[in-house]
Parts: sequence; structure tokens; C-alpha cells
Amino acid sequence: MIISKFFAPATTANLSAGYEIFGLALERPGDIVTAVKTDKPGVQLLSITGDDDKLPKDADKNTATFAAKALIKHLHYEGGIGLHLEKNLPISSGMGSSAASSAAAVAAVNHLLNAGLSNKQLVPFAMEGERLACGSPHADNVAPSLMGGLVLVRSYQPLDLISIQIPENLHYAIVSPDILIRTSDSRAKVPEHINITDVVAQMGNSAAFIAALIQGDFEMLSRAAEDFIAEPARASLIPGFSLVKQAALQSGAAAAGLSGSGPSMFALSDNLKTAQKNAVEMAKIFTAQEIESTIYCGVVSQQGARLIDA
Amino acid sequence: MIISKFFAPATTANLSAGYEIFGLALERPGDIVTAVKTDKPGVQLLSITGDDDKLPKDADKNTATFAAKALIKHLHYEGGIGLHLEKNLPISSGMGSSAASSAAAVAAVNHLLNAGLSNKQLVPFAMEGERLACGSPHADNVAPSLMGGLVLVRSYQPLDLISIQIPENLHYAIVSPDILIRTSDSRAKVPEHINITDVVAQMGNSAAFIAALIQGDFEMLSRAAEDFIAEPARASLIPGFSLVKQAALQSGAAAAGLSGSGPSMFALSDNLKTAQKNAVEMAKIFTAQEIESTIYCGVVSQQGARLIDA
Repeated sequence: MIISKFFAPATTANLSAGYEIFGLALERPGDIVTAVKTDKPGVQLLSITGDDDKLPKDADKNTATFAAKALIKHLHYEGGIGLHLEKNLPISSGMGSSAASSAAAVAAVNHLLNAGLSNKQLVPFAMEGERLACGSPHADNVAPSLMGGLVLVRSYQPLDLISIQIPENLHYAIVSPDILIRTSDSRAKVPEHINITDVVAQMGNSAAFIAALIQGDFEMLSRAAEDFIAEPARASLIPGFSLVKQAALQSGAAAAGLSGSGPSMFALSDNLKTAQKNAVEMAKIFTAQEIESTIYCGVVSQQGARLIDA
Repeated sequence: MIISKFFAPATTANLSAGYEIFGLALERPGDIVTAVKTDKPGVQLLSITGDDDKLPKDADKNTATFAAKALIKHLHYEGGIGLHLEKNLPISSGMGSSAASSAAAVAAVNHLLNAGLSNKQLVPFAMEGERLACGSPHADNVAPSLMGGLVLVRSYQPLDLISIQIPENLHYAIVSPDILIRTSDSRAKVPEHINITDVVAQMGNSAAFIAALIQGDFEMLSRAAEDFIAEPARASLIPGFSLVKQAALQSGAAAAGLSGSGPSMFALSDNLKTAQKNAVEMAKIFTAQEIESTIYCGVVSQQGARLIDA
């Protein structure tokens, strides 16, 4: 039997400088999807592990199978496909959990069916998983999870994805506190209309953030990582938000803030040792509030979803 | 007598991709300010030429003298300074006319007094001229007029100006129609609150526009030059706006749109011949409406305000 097994990395989006326009791929963790052909037409979810029974088993409600369905529809494939999902990312964490599952699923199915789409071409199908997960087919997690590195979503209509060159020494720390925030609740916090003064400030920061990455200028990156749109509206959802951010910056991070829609928080730095220190100091703030957290550190991954040994 | 004579170039801001966050310096035209010491304390306007008697002669109402006053106040200079202003830019044209006068004035005074400020350090004083001209101390014209090239205004508070590397072959065409739009009227057209969907689109374009310039990618530049904030609100002020824009794009421009707050329109391209063609085709649309226009073409100037022979 042909087996197609894909890993797709966690991602962190917004980065205190944009909103729905960029995200970057982490080295780890990531979700793993194994796709096999079956006799039953359509896409079935054959198994899930690692989700503590939290994710829906119904193929119409699970993001991995939902995204895979969108892909086989596009491919006019009428046979049967079964997916095994190994969930390694915490759910609703702000680390692109649903995105990693969708990305791994479409990449695995694309390979299984020998469909020949590039990871970039797979993004719109993975976005359908995001539509299911939070009501909005945003690309800032699925695009870096599939394509690796930092992806700028220049436009949604038409979809225009730009891989931005990043410093090889761009490191992250992610601290994921054990509290539950629904992505939909966090998204609802973002105002529908933004004051023009804040728009000007945020545009300046988004543009400078991208310039800083291309030029490898960590000082500029630091100045540009200030969010006027989403983070101020969402900060109240995270216990001790300002203290966690401060802990990261005081321990040498170039930038820090809310990872995606939270509750995870990120820090960026130019070396692994600083990233590890950031993670420890950020986690301490949660510990002091009797909130457990999981930490992840590493270098930003230039690789997105990829085949692994079956 | 010591004479300090400075040229400061016209500029084009917004570029259909940002709003108040960047502008670039044109090769020509530019305003010229000559500063001399006088016996009468304060700043006097000694002469203006080229303005068809349209500009205020009162030193408290003219942008050049107003900006110079802000500078000498900062320098605690208590002597007298006189300015001669040679106006070469059309007034209220969207080509940074008031900005060029303010920039040339502060650069000339800085040199006359041997104050030693860099052109970048002079920006806040030239911004005072903008405050006088339109009520808002915006920096997207004065910064490139002083510093040359393309300047990204990352932040206003604190002021953070970033010179962005641009392709050496970045050319412009500017067509300035002989119609009057007050900058304040054009500014009033921009809504005070922007829908989050448009904010996301505009942030993506601002960031991609800067990435395209740094990478010298004219195709990306072309995709990024689409304005969701100011241009749609202001287009109705310009007779035949869409046709002029279309004429530029159809004659090979990578990008085209409203220059600053208008009525001038700009086009960007990768060579002088195309820029010239863009200018001619854009001007034809105005001519067909019985509107005279002046055209300017050249390469984006890496040089900002500069000393010229007295």
C-alpha cells in the first residue's frame, strides 16, 4: 500500500507588527498526517492521536480532512482517501495548530495522488481548513506551515504569497500557557474599524518589519514590532500579558508579543541562547500566576511541510 | 557676506501603496532657498520669485520662513536671518511643494549657522512647515526632500525615518494638471476610520512595496501599488483619474496613481524612455479634457537637499 506521511510545522503569525499578513514557520513542534488510499470514496479520518479526544472525528468537522476534501474536489479525484493525524501541537494555542493539520493533510494527499502541486499552490486548500476552524480563511499560518520561512500575504483577492528572505540566525521562543482562549473569541476582539492614525502607525511598522528582516537589521525589527491593532485589543485575554512581554524584552529579545490570536506568546532574537533565556523568563511570569506553560525554542525553519519516512 | 544657497527636490508620496508613510525624491524640479544673515533678529522673507504672487510674504505664514524659525528656536540663535525663495514647483500640486521650500530653508539655515545638523536631523523642523501648510506635520514629503531616495516613516512618535535601498533604475513620470485642489480639501477626503479588511489589504501592500524596492522586483512593485485608503477617496477630485492611471499602466508603467494629495499623478518604471512615454500618454488624457498639464520625468534622486553655488 502506498503511504504518504507529511510533517507540517507550527507557525507564529502577526508578530506584533502585522495582522493577517505574515507568519513564520517554527522548527518544531509540528503535526503529522499520513494519507492512504481506501476503498470508500471521499476523505475519512482513520485515526487521531495526541489530541486528548478534543478534536472532532467527523471528516466534515476536522480541519485536516476538510482541507483534504477541498483538494480532492479541485483534483476531481473520486476515489477514497484515509488520513491518520498525529497531533503534536497544543490546540487553540495561537501556534497555528489547525493550520499545521490542514497543511500536513493537503501536502500528504498531494503526494499520495501524485498531483504535482507545489506547497505554495496547496495554500488555498489548507485555507479551507482555517475557514472551518475559525470562520475566516486566513493564510498567515497555513502559508508559512506549507512554504516555510516567513511568508507575506500581500493580498487575499487574488491570493498573493511572497516568501521574504530572513536572517539565518532568526530564533524564536514560544511560551504556550495552559489556558483556553477560543480563536473565534480572540478574533472577535479585533475592532472592525481602525482609526486612521493607528492605520498609519501599523502600516509603517509592517513595512519596516519586512525591511528589517530582509536587511537582517534586528534593531529595526525591534522598533517595528509594535502592534496598534490586534494586540492591544487582545492583551486583556492573557493573564500578565505586559509582564510576559517585558520579561522577554528584558532578557534580550528583539521583539515579543502575542503569537497569532494567543494565548501563546512569542519572542524573536538573534541566537538560540537568548531565545532559551527568553522562554524561561516568560514562563516564569505564568508560573508566578500558577499557570503551567510549555516552551519551544529554535531557529526559524526555512522548510515548510515535508515528506517524512513512513 | 556669507551666503548659503540650497536646492531641495520635489517629492512624490503615498505611491498608491501607503499613506503618510513614504515618499521619494525626484531629480527635478526643486525649490531654492538662499539664506543670509541680517541685522534684524528673527527670520525674514526677503524675496520670492516664481510663485506668481500666490504665496504669503508674511514670515509667520510662509512655510520656508516658518520652518526656519522652528530651527533657529531650537538652536537658540538670536540673530537675524533673511531668506530668498526661488519657487520652481507648482503650488498645491501634490509634488511636495511646501515641503521642498521648508526643506531648502532649514538646510540653508543649518549651513549658514554652521549648526552641523544632518539632513535627517533637520526633518522635524521642516515638518513644522507642513503643519503650517496643511495642518498636519506629516513627514512623507519633507523627509525624502531632505534625505533623498525613498524614506519610510516607520513612526511619527517618536519620529523614525528609514532610508530604503531602491533600484538604481527607478524612474518616475509626474503629470501635474493645471487645476486647483487644496491640500486640506484632499486630506479631508480620507476617512477617519478604515474597515479592517482594507487595513489588512493596505498593510500587505505597504510591506510588499518596500520588499519589492529593496529586492528590485518591479513585478512585485506593480502588484503592491494598489491603494485601499486614500486614493479611492480622492480619485473623484481628479478629472479622468482612472483614464490617466490606465494610460500610464498601458504605456508600460509598473505603477501609477495619485501623487501625494494630488492633483498631480505619478508613474513608476524601470527606464527613462518608458517614463517619458508614460508622461506623454497621461498628459494626453488631461489635454482631451482641455486641461493643460506640466510633465516631469527622471530617475529617482538618491540626493536630497544640497548646497549649490551661490
